[in-house]
Amino acid sequence: MKLLVINPNISESVSALIAAEARRVASAETQITMQTATFGVAYIETRFEAMIGAMAVAELAGAHAGGHDALVIAAFGDPGLLAMREVLDIPVVGLTESAVLTACALGQRFSIIAISKRIAAWYEETVASYGLASRLASIRTLDQTLRDIGAVQEHHAQALKALCMQAIEQDRADVLIIAGAPLAGLARTIESEIPVPVIDGVSCAIRHAESLVKLGARPPQASSLAPPPRKPNHGLSEALRRLLER
Amino acid sequence: MKLLVINPNISESVSALIAAEARRVASAETQITMQTATFGVAYIETRFEAMIGAMAVAELAGAHAGGHDALVIAAFGDPGLLAMREVLDIPVVGLTESAVLTACALGQRFSIIAISKRIAAWYEETVASYGLASRLASIRTLDQTLRDIGAVQEHHAQALKALCMQAIEQDRADVLIIAGAPLAGLARTIESEIPVPVIDGVSCAIRHAESLVKLGARPPQASSLAPPPRKPNHGLSEALRRLLER
Amino acid sequence: MKLLVINPNISESVSALIAAEARRVASAETQITMQTATFGVAYIETRFEAMIGAMAVAELAGAHAGGHDALVIAAFGDPGLLAMREVLDIPVVGLTESAVLTACALGQRFSIIAISKRIAAWYEETVASYGLASRLASIRTLDQTLRDIGAVQEHHAQALKALCMQAIEQDRADVLIIAGAPLAGLARTIESEIPVPVIDGVSCAIRHAESLVKLGARPPQASSLAPPPRKPNHGLSEALRRLLER
Amino acid sequence: MKLLVINPNISESVSALIAAEARRVASAETQITMQTATFGVAYIETRFEAMIGAMAVAELAGAHAGGHDALVIAAFGDPGLLAMREVLDIPVVGLTESAVLTACALGQRFSIIAISKRIAAWYEETVASYGLASRLASIRTLDQTLRDIGAVQEHHAQALKALCMQAIEQDRADVLIIAGAPLAGLARTIESEIPVPVIDGVSCAIRHAESLVKLGARPPQASSLAPPPRKPNHGLSEALRRLLER
Amino acid sequence: MKLLVINPNISESVSALIAAEARRVASAETQITMQTATFGVAYIETRFEAMIGAMAVAELAGAHAGGHDALVIAAFGDPGLLAMREVLDIPVVGLTESAVLTACALGQRFSIIAISKRIAAWYEETVASYGLASRLASIRTLDQTLRDIGAVQEHHAQALKALCMQAIEQDRADVLIIAGAPLAGLARTIESEIPVPVIDGVSCAIRHAESLVKLGARPPQASSLAPPPRKPNHGLSEALRRLLER
Amino acid sequence: MKLLVINPNISESVSALIAAEARRVASAETQITMQTATFGVAYIETRFEAMIGAMAVAELAGAHAGGHDALVIAAFGDPGLLAMREVLDIPVVGLTESAVLTACALGQRFSIIAISKRIAAWYEETVASYGLASRLASIRTLDQTLRDIGAVQEHHAQALKALCMQAIEQDRADVLIIAGAPLAGLARTIESEIPVPVIDGVSCAIRHAESLVKLGARPPQASSLAPPPRKPNHGLSEALRRLLER
Repeated sequence: MKLLVINPNISESVSALIAAEARRVASAETQITMQTATFGVAYIETRFEAMIGAMAVAELAGAHAGGHDALVIAAFGDPGLLAMREVLDIPVVGLTESAVLTACALGQRFSIIAISKRIAAWYEETVASYGLASRLASIRTLDQTLRDIGAVQEHHAQALKALCMQAIEQDRADVLIIAGAPLAGLARTIESEIPVPVIDGVSCAIRHAESLVKLGARPPQASSLAPPPRKPNHGLSEALRRLLER
Repeated sequence: MKLLVINPNISESVSALIAAEARRVASAETQITMQTATFGVAYIETRFEAMIGAMAVAELAGAHAGGHDALVIAAFGDPGLLAMREVLDIPVVGLTESAVLTACALGQRFSIIAISKRIAAWYEETVASYGLASRLASIRTLDQTLRDIGAVQEHHAQALKALCMQAIEQDRADVLIIAGAPLAGLARTIESEIPVPVIDGVSCAIRHAESLVKLGARPPQASSLAPPPRKPNHGLSEALRRLLER
Repeated sequence: MKLLVINPNISESVSALIAAEARRVASAETQITMQTATFGVAYIETRFEAMIGAMAVAELAGAHAGGHDALVIAAFGDPGLLAMREVLDIPVVGLTESAVLTACALGQRFSIIAISKRIAAWYEETVASYGLASRLASIRTLDQTLRDIGAVQEHHAQALKALCMQAIEQDRADVLIIAGAPLAGLARTIESEIPVPVIDGVSCAIRHAESLVKLGARPPQASSLAPPPRKPNHGLSEALRRLLER
Repeated sequence: MKLLVINPNISESVSALIAAEARRVASAETQITMQTATFGVAYIETRFEAMIGAMAVAELAGAHAGGHDALVIAAFGDPGLLAMREVLDIPVVGLTESAVLTACALGQRFSIIAISKRIAAWYEETVASYGLASRLASIRTLDQTLRDIGAVQEHHAQALKALCMQAIEQDRADVLIIAGAPLAGLARTIESEIPVPVIDGVSCAIRHAESLVKLGARPPQASSLAPPPRKPNHGLSEALRRLLER
Repeated sequence: MKLLVINPNISESVSALIAAEARRVASAETQITMQTATFGVAYIETRFEAMIGAMAVAELAGAHAGGHDALVIAAFGDPGLLAMREVLDIPVVGLTESAVLTACALGQRFSIIAISKRIAAWYEETVASYGLASRLASIRTLDQTLRDIGAVQEHHAQALKALCMQAIEQDRADVLIIAGAPLAGLARTIESEIPVPVIDGVSCAIRHAESLVKLGARPPQASSLAPPPRKPNHGLSEALRRLLER
Repeated sequence: MKLLVINPNISESVSALIAAEARRVASAETQITMQTATFGVAYIETRFEAMIGAMAVAELAGAHAGGHDALVIAAFGDPGLLAMREVLDIPVVGLTESAVLTACALGQRFSIIAISKRIAAWYEETVASYGLASRLASIRTLDQTLRDIGAVQEHHAQALKALCMQAIEQDRADVLIIAGAPLAGLARTIESEIPVPVIDGVSCAIRHAESLVKLGARPPQASSLAPPPRKPNHGLSEALRRLLER
């Protein structure tokens, strides 16, 4: 099985984190192709940045999806998730969706622990767009300027653990989601100190992708995820045109 | 990996269907232990029957869960799902929950195709209790008395396919869930004739169970899924007492 | 009029509290038959315990409902409420449902005051399952280990009053529900010190049961509360079989 | 016990229907004082008419509530219900609220059967304002011009029964509410022909009023139903001024 | 264009504030007719007071709407808004509705800053009745007795600004609504000190009224805002009768 | 006042329709700058196409917004609306948002009349993302292949009128929204034949833009619509970089 993992951000250091975590959780026979956005920002916190990230995902997917069995969009917030489901005939998963669906199988209420205050609105809208606002106990976030997005785990481990305990004690969370690709792997590091399950997006997404590939459901040819109706287009890259015209 | 699969109904013929489908989708290294309820009804359609089924699951799980890595509750409607999560320290999955979470990763709106009109209310409440009522496009059901619950697929295949097409065309479903253990395997049989993904509870639940085992999240010791507080009990079977006192 | 009141817990001391409160509020001509669960736990705080309590209610109702005009399930959380409505042809009420419906006629937002932190999740899910989450201002709970469930009122009266005042001042509750059979009668004791209506489950449930009996609505023969369709069953007690086969 | 029953419409013939039904269901020791709006319209179908009806209720309540134990607002749609709860220190009930709360204790989904298509929007908003939209299966209505509001039952009995059966078979209603004071008593007449419980507003409201009086909850002195803060007023009738200044 | 602006309260000092603010924001060619309730209370904080205010609006509108192009109901909480839409054939706007619709075009979450704790329940119900509860970040209120409703801005400017900052920092509001006619104009005064858009009801309502007039949509002759069906009425003022019989 | 109107589709014929309608409704002193997407598809029906459209809007806005007072995104579905609000310091409006907010001021329930069945899912998600799903009566759509997107009005006028009448009679819509830029102006043409208000996105959006400009609310510097935090970016066009770095 071959998974295409796309980091919608331009941070190679974060791609390295993602790739390492992905390889750790993937089955032995799964191959991971890691791609990093060729344009965009260092890490996505807002809707505008997510829009750019979605476009970067589309360009890379159009160019590289061939020969892969599933696509993993490796930023929390899932930029372009539904869009890519319309144009690819392989399963497409995102970090947030995979994490919240997994969380739903582990507890009734989940909290999201994230890296910046600004990011909370975008995450909250993402969860709400999946119809799962009633399962979200809280979003708790760091509240400091991030100096080095690739080193956020070392710099803030204690603060992140404190947020986890607040989510349990004050928000009654049954499960915690450590959000954001820059925190990939942190769940594993701290879980022995936290009295409820702690999960993260990358490992959930890889497992979801593998499950969906094995499930082998046929690509939709009707309803809202069928390929967009054929119509004139103009000015698009070869990669996007290929997606529109498959 | 060892999975305990419990049929909360007393129908051995349905257990055979479930076991066959489970073995088909499970990884090579996964072992399936199949258990059938020792008391209860032929198939669960109502809340009263589900209450009995939940108790039958608890008795079997208390007696047999030891040595297993996850429990699969193999009736649509997931009798006893949250209850069992409180008292077992292994992942517990249900057919409905696994199917709807999988459906959420394949489309925005899902429909449930089921075997009797009476069953719709219970299924609808189950989906609503997971917070996913907004993703449910419709529940469409057969409307005939079932003569032989083990043979419902052969007797009603055409009618079930017609319900599938109505869910797509009239309810705008992106994904279809073939509901109920007696229909295990049907999704596979008809999917080539249906233009959207068609999934069923048994195969989704087996995959979810495998994923959660591999995820290895620690059992909750806090919040609402921690073991019930210790307190006096009385009159319970050895199996139930063991669950309460782990 | 004869009311069957079943305590789904095994605590005889709590049954005594319930029976005393029930007799106090019932009309002169109403007779109360009090039954205590013959198996189960000392007091229900979790979903697993509620599942056992529901089964204990079913066994007692199957054995003793004959000749009664209504059934009162006397534990907050209403274990088995919908299930029993399917199989009995008399009205069935629960403490939570009766209290929240009464609260809705006394104010726009109600708070629930309860005996343990653990119990909050189960109560919240119960209220949500009635479609009334939007009317729930808060659940406020004691946060101490309960030594003697039959004496919780004396030991914690001041703490419970403080919770009441917080629900009014911080959560804007119009009405307070003192939850849980072990607190039966407390509402009456403290209401003169609390500036909004304070109600409790037992007295609301007895009044609801009397009202529904007088209303004389016919038992449902269609839709989701009609008796479960006839089908094979196995391994059930005489009491449960009688319920399934009425 | 003395109940003040106010018809917010000017139809004396409807008041007679209400009074007869109220006396039929009330306990022997309950006295009914019937009052008819001194201004307003023949029957309320819209929000503007309901606003006038609310004012008529307030004028009559201000003049006549003294010496009564509860107020019944006897029009479906409950004109002025919350307003009157703020200014009276006795329980106030309405036909819709009483009927829907009773319906919630008899089934999971209720349908409302009503006398005109125009009235549906107002009823739907009323139910939604109580937070119970998720319990409403449907509103089904006659679709003819009403010649004589006092004789709607005789003229349309067959049509109303047909609507009941549609609500059961197509909308999966567990309970039916026959809505509107002009239909008072109809539920009783047709219930033997309908396979689910059929209730009506007047009888539910009388029973609710009696229950709340016996409950004896103290009038709120805090939160949103306490009396309005004292402040200058001008141009009001003696009756309204008395309500504002109690 | 001629706008009829009705203050549903009896405070002439508040009418003066409203009129000044309305004239400030209106287009040069717009004429404002200001009317003050001839009966009612000094300022509306509760549902009972709002019911009286709605009736006062109806009386004034019936008497004075002729020749105007739109009606502005100039109290937060919009007393009588839907009722008046049924009986006038010109656009009708309210302060709350106009402010929340404007807020929705300026940000995802809005907070309401108001003058008294008591008023919060009524405002919250108003927003919920518009279906916009999910956009409401919070309602923050002064918590002091108001001595002079016409001078609340001078007396409490600092406290109101502090509430604004709390709504941003603690409730994540994207937009702030300064609520209540007595605060008309305050938004303009403080907006330079607040880092998100600050709007108020009067200026939003005037602009909405102008927009709707220019839009020129025809008055509804079908569905729920068509004029109430003709029927007998009695005891109404000339003004109300004219509205009912247009 | 200068408004920048961007058609996110590449259809010059649709841009001409939009521009004509915009000029018709704009105030005399308002100048309209019309821009057409330089890349993308002929008309947006799906999420993938909307993602491309959003990017096209961003590129044009980054290049041309300078000197304008507001931006109008002139496709139903509002591609890029929230994203553009983060990076522009002028008001940004969209056709759907403007139309639904206007509809909310004209009636309680609105229906959307649209040009293709496929487009319904995207529109429904758009309305839901604004929190207004409870106000949406229905989406009714043509169900034919569109030959010429610039001539859809002439070819389908009768079918569109029939959809309008169904929305009123079967879905109880108080207001109708004629959706999609290709239908700009149709509302005006047919409104005399439809008994409820009929509005369209272009005219609502132009009026909203003018109102918001006159309101003069300051651009947000806090909460979720403040400019994205500064951080490294790479590979972006001059236009996008300018938006990110303002």
